[in-house]
Amino acid sequence: MTDSRSFESLIRDVRDFPKPGIVFKDLTTLFMDADAFARAMRELEQLIDWTGVELIVAIEARGFILGGYLAATRGLGFVPIRKPGKLPSDCVREEYTLEYGSDAIEMHRDACAGGRRVVIVDDVLATGGTAAAAARLVEASDGVVGDVAFLLELDFLDGRSKLPGRTIKSLIHVGGE
Amino acid sequence: MTDSRSFESLIRDVRDFPKPGIVFKDLTTLFMDADAFARAMRELEQLIDWTGVELIVAIEARGFILGGYLAATRGLGFVPIRKPGKLPSDCVREEYTLEYGSDAIEMHRDACAGGRRVVIVDDVLATGGTAAAAARLVEASDGVVGDVAFLLELDFLDGRSKLPGRTIKSLIHVGGE
Repeated sequence: MTDSRSFESLIRDVRDFPKPGIVFKDLTTLFMDADAFARAMRELEQLIDWTGVELIVAIEARGFILGGYLAATRGLGFVPIRKPGKLPSDCVREEYTLEYGSDAIEMHRDACAGGRRVVIVDDVLATGGTAAAAARLVEASDGVVGDVAFLLELDFLDGRSKLPGRTIKSLIHVGGE
Repeated sequence: MTDSRSFESLIRDVRDFPKPGIVFKDLTTLFMDADAFARAMRELEQLIDWTGVELIVAIEARGFILGGYLAATRGLGFVPIRKPGKLPSDCVREEYTLEYGSDAIEMHRDACAGGRRVVIVDDVLATGGTAAAAARLVEASDGVVGDVAFLLELDFLDGRSKLPGRTIKSLIHVGGE
């Protein structure tokens, strides 16, 4: 677990972002470290069960940073999940609740056609609402959800509870303050 | 140039997106093709002059798809450029003009400290306003701009004219309708 601890030391705590009282875990300080970035990507790749997987489904925006690498390196197709109105063709859409109000994400309706097995990736598993909606999108588009993979999981937010029955792979875990 | 033509055949034309009269070049159909995606990423990598480059600077959101791969594959740091308010720490900011009005992008102020040489990447070179602002951001953050690389260049929009003195590398070129 030495590796995991050195990743954690590269994550910057930013207080009161995006709102007062929140300590934001900033991965950009890890990303700008060339050795740590390449190692994190390789180790995340090794965590994932690739059996039968045909597509990487990545969640906008920071999930794209991981997803493009994983797809090109594994020789898989890449499918983006985006905020409403960003994807140009016919979409499926899922809403999810936030602390106050709700938000939505979309994926092209034809993206997983034919029952293709996918790995869903995002940078951080926080409360789990977005990832749960992403898994529903994949199934709405006729896909099969394999691993749901994150670079960082905020264990104290218990996002896993929003993803029952899913296999979650997180490279780095951090607790609360 | 057979390769380039087959890439082009995988790009979907979406009429009247995001506005009436515009034919949007949708790269998601190329991205979901496993072979084409991996090949496009490798060929883009081969186009770029990597001499002395330490960082990839990628423009939100679709530039992240290319940037994560290029950084991890080349063993370079990854730096995101984002819309205002998305990056948590102290930022430099550049505005650029759109057809109607203006927009802005930000990068962490410490991202390129020490005169580091960077390659800027985005998916599409259209009118060039965002890429020109990205190059100014890198210089405002004490970085040195190397190649500015795109998967697709819309030649008829002449985005190159907004990037005088920059070295532009585009894998795929398309003309107008």
